[in-house]
Amino acid sequence: MVLFRLHSMQNQIVLGVSNRHVHLSREDLTTLFGLDALTVYRRVRQPGEFAAEQFVKVHGPRTTFEKVRIMGPCRAKSQVELSRTDCIQLGIDAPLTQSGHLQNAGPVEIEGPKGRVRLEHGALVAARHVHMGPGHAAELGVADQELVKIRFGGQRGGVLDNFIIRVKDEWVPEIHLDTDEANALGLHSGDHGELIKG
Amino acid sequence: MVLFRLHSMQNQIVLGVSNRHVHLSREDLTTLFGLDALTVYRRVRQPGEFAAEQFVKVHGPRTTFEKVRIMGPCRAKSQVELSRTDCIQLGIDAPLTQSGHLQNAGPVEIEGPKGRVRLEHGALVAARHVHMGPGHAAELGVADQELVKIRFGGQRGGVLDNFIIRVKDEWVPEIHLDTDEANALGLHSGDHGELIKG
Repeated sequence: MVLFRLHSMQNQIVLGVSNRHVHLSREDLTTLFGLDALTVYRRVRQPGEFAAEQFVKVHGPRTTFEKVRIMGPCRAKSQVELSRTDCIQLGIDAPLTQSGHLQNAGPVEIEGPKGRVRLEHGALVAARHVHMGPGHAAELGVADQELVKIRFGGQRGGVLDNFIIRVKDEWVPEIHLDTDEANALGLHSGDHGELIKG
Repeated sequence: MVLFRLHSMQNQIVLGVSNRHVHLSREDLTTLFGLDALTVYRRVRQPGEFAAEQFVKVHGPRTTFEKVRIMGPCRAKSQVELSRTDCIQLGIDAPLTQSGHLQNAGPVEIEGPKGRVRLEHGALVAARHVHMGPGHAAELGVADQELVKIRFGGQRGGVLDNFIIRVKDEWVPEIHLDTDEANALGLHSGDHGELIKG
């Protein structure tokens, strides 16, 4: 019974809900803000990552989002992570893909106090994923890039398919959904989901 | 094998995605538009129901939606059906509940060309549901108000819990989701889901 409960608890992973946000390359940060580095507004669960104090405007053909949070630190390439609802409002056709996989990402313009940048391949809807370190992956018997299901409880609960397992040494276990997924399932950051293999 | 395929096809039900919309009482229609009856823009799948040519503004504390479609014909009471994302944008705290169950519905104001109405209990997020007639319910072995699951395919697929079976003589089989749910699962009107009992 104790073993069963331990196993059951290992499969319970905390949820982080990602609102629309932007990652910037250092070059684009300089263009948009005249800054060398972002400043920290609030640290998030993954070590070293943070919500920055800086915001950008995100321009699409149909509307502009006036205040979209930048997440730090800087990355190799800038990208704008949107929900499908955001894409429809902006009038941007963005693919569902893994963060950083920008070859098919949609066109989008971002604006800061010092300048404006057009990203020809910058807008995406992030595919559902689960962050974890190698130790946790070994305990759960899953590997980097494996697809799993996650069960969520509640009145709007259910089992969602095709979460990508993403493993890095420094990461801690965390499920990431966007706001469409969280609102559709009645979920909030800090809720938990149960990982189901296969 | 033929029987199995027949059974499998019976469980496949077409999806209708509900964007935010308004139902009006005849009294509120008169106040807002000076009209006795709505006019038909486009018939929808359920016999006798239609998207009207008329729109209202929906006012919340945080923003206004300028053009929200009215669905006809008129009902006993006015109600505004929103997604959770809509509620957050409007700044309205609306419960997840069945259409027409307005005792806990949230406050909202609606405006037409001739007037404005405040609904103290008018805003809701519609609980997932499946329309059907009595014959189809009998074939599927489900009853009015029973809860079922629905499986959806695709990259963003999954199994959602707690769809309310709703049976009326004139209804045809149709799953209803809101835009959060459809966008979260990558679904569009005309897609199909598989009903799962229990």
